[in-house]
Formats: sequence, structure tokens, C-alpha cells
Amino acid sequence: MKFLSATVESVLLADMPGTFVTRRVDQVVLDMAGIPGDRHYGLTRLSGAREPMYPRGTKIRNRRQISVVSTEECDQIAQQLGLDVLLPEWLGANLLLRGLPHLTQLPTGSRLLLPNGVGLVCEGENAPCRHPGEIIQTLHPAQPGLIKRFVPIAQKRRGIVCSIECPGTIVQGDPVRVLLESSAIGQPQMAMHQ
Amino acid sequence: MKFLSATVESVLLADMPGTFVTRRVDQVVLDMAGIPGDRHYGLTRLSGAREPMYPRGTKIRNRRQISVVSTEECDQIAQQLGLDVLLPEWLGANLLLRGLPHLTQLPTGSRLLLPNGVGLVCEGENAPCRHPGEIIQTLHPAQPGLIKRFVPIAQKRRGIVCSIECPGTIVQGDPVRVLLESSAIGQPQMAMHQ
Repeated sequence: MKFLSATVESVLLADMPGTFVTRRVDQVVLDMAGIPGDRHYGLTRLSGAREPMYPRGTKIRNRRQISVVSTEECDQIAQQLGLDVLLPEWLGANLLLRGLPHLTQLPTGSRLLLPNGVGLVCEGENAPCRHPGEIIQTLHPAQPGLIKRFVPIAQKRRGIVCSIECPGTIVQGDPVRVLLESSAIGQPQMAMHQ
Repeated sequence: MKFLSATVESVLLADMPGTFVTRRVDQVVLDMAGIPGDRHYGLTRLSGAREPMYPRGTKIRNRRQISVVSTEECDQIAQQLGLDVLLPEWLGANLLLRGLPHLTQLPTGSRLLLPNGVGLVCEGENAPCRHPGEIIQTLHPAQPGLIKRFVPIAQKRRGIVCSIECPGTIVQGDPVRVLLESSAIGQPQMAMHQ
């Protein structure tokens, strides 16, 4: 088995009313449906624009339980937008990882394995939408055009969504082993480290 | 979105006591946990030899709800084993598809979409084990060595396992649209048709 290594820089929770924006916490305790109390908690969800293969509003399995971003990719987005920093809160991320400059290219089916027995399965790229751009624009009123620029700049850098394979506790500072989906090993564009 | 096309040649159920061998039925009605009454039904299962990243017996999400094989790959295995035919029953398959000569190479995260709204998610190759070889050997006593030969010959031909994304009814004869996981499109070895 081929592993990459990363570290949990921050753990975050989307529990503030009316917004997808997350806030930092010391740890989260996952069950099979995600993080209890989080906006994306659930075994199922209703399909939307991301699932054009189903009629809108169809009850489907929730493959978007956890949002994961990397410090390296957030720094790249910030640089391209001309910002000092891009916070994971603004992306609604639940986990900020350090050590994966190409996190968003992680093949679907890859696993993130954590010390307390937690296993997350990569369900694919979290394709960027307007909403984080709107948050970023609101916080940077002196820099116009950020909403429009966010989506193209965040493509392939905005992180991944994961489902829970094995529940448990995730703590800030946890080391992460990343197990690449084997069907993708050996493919040139799947080289995850620069 | 890039689709491939296939047809449901047979629908099968693993509901006979004490065996993984399946039997043909006209249709199955899926819920989020799989096919009620089937041996692999469940939202969760206990980890085993296929999940060495977890202690054996750990409760994990069931990503092996449905087993899918193709007529073309079954024919290839039969030919290599020197048999007239390899039946999907002997592999414990729930769906036999026609039209996908490289089904087993389908990238994890790809979707099988069926007319009654059913959506299955490819969870990866179903790595072959000894048990189907034992069934095949029992049924072909005049041809020794089939148990040992089955596993290497069935590698990358024994089909995939799927989880349910959207439940519903699957009927023999249904057309199937296969939506490739986008991160894998354009990769040379992902060309699914010969």
C-alpha cells in the first residue's frame, strides 16, 4: 500500500445559523453520517446542481459529509486572488491539512486514515461555486472583482469532499496517512507531491 | 458528461443459506443499504482481509452492497480456464452487464445509472478470492487445478463492487448509462471500450 503523509492543521465545524462558514474547534467526533451538528451531517441529502444525473431534490446518499482543504492550495488561491491569506473558514472546510500541495487531485476512493481509527473516503473534487467568493468579497471590500475571479482560480485547488468509512474522533495536530486508490497508482498526473 | 452504454443481462440475488452463490430473479428493489434479503445487504459491515488498514472486525461503511460483472469479462475468464461458460452465479454477482469489456477497470466514483432512477457508485475492483474457484472446481471435477488458477486469471476481470447512491428498482433488460468519474477521463488506460 502506498501512503502519503499530512497533518491536521485545523478542525472546523459548520454550526453557525444561516451560513456554510465554519469555525475552529479542538476536535470533532464523527459517526457514520458525519459530524453531528454540522450543516452537512446526514446519511442522505437532496440532489442539487452538482448531481445533474438525478432530478433536483432526489434523496441520495450523502457523499459530501466532510470538506477537506490543504494549506498549500489555500495559499495558492490567496496568491492568485492577491490576498494575504485565504482561511479555510471561508470555504466551509471541516479539515485543513498540511502536506498535500495537490490534495484536490486525490483520486476518488482514496482514504484519509487518522490515529483514532477514523477512515474517510475521498468522494472527489469539491467543485468551487460562487458562495465562498461572496464571503471573501465581503471581507475585502477594497478589492473588487473577487466573486467573479474566485471560481476559475479555485478550480482544482478548493479541496475534496469525503464520506465516513470508519467513525471516531479527529483532533487538531493528528497525523494523516493518505492511501491512494490503487486503480490510480502509477498514473503520471496522480503524483501528489511536487 | 461522458457516458458509456450497457444492458442489464441478468439480475441476481444472494439469498440461499450458507453460500455467496446467487440465483437469477426478474428484478430487485434496492434501498440505501442494498438489496433487502441479500447476503451483502447493510449500511455497515465488519472489516476483513480486504481492508488491512482497519483492525479486523471493525464496523465500517458497507461499500460492497452490489457486485457487478460483465458478460465479456466472464467469457474471458471462462476461455482462460478452459471452460465453456462462467456463470455470474458462481461469482456471487448481483448484476450481469453486457457491453463493458473492461468493466473491472471502471474508475472508482463512476456511476451506473438505470431507468427507474437507480444510481450505483463504483467502489472499485472486486479483487478475486478463492471461493468462486472452489465453486467452479466442484462443478467441473474432470478439470483439476481450477481453484489455484482462478485467482490470477480473474484479476482485473472479476468485476466491481458498488454502493447505492439512489435507490429504486432494477429490471432485467434495463439499459445502463455509465458515467465515468471525471478525474479519470482522458487517462489512456481508462478507455473502457476496445
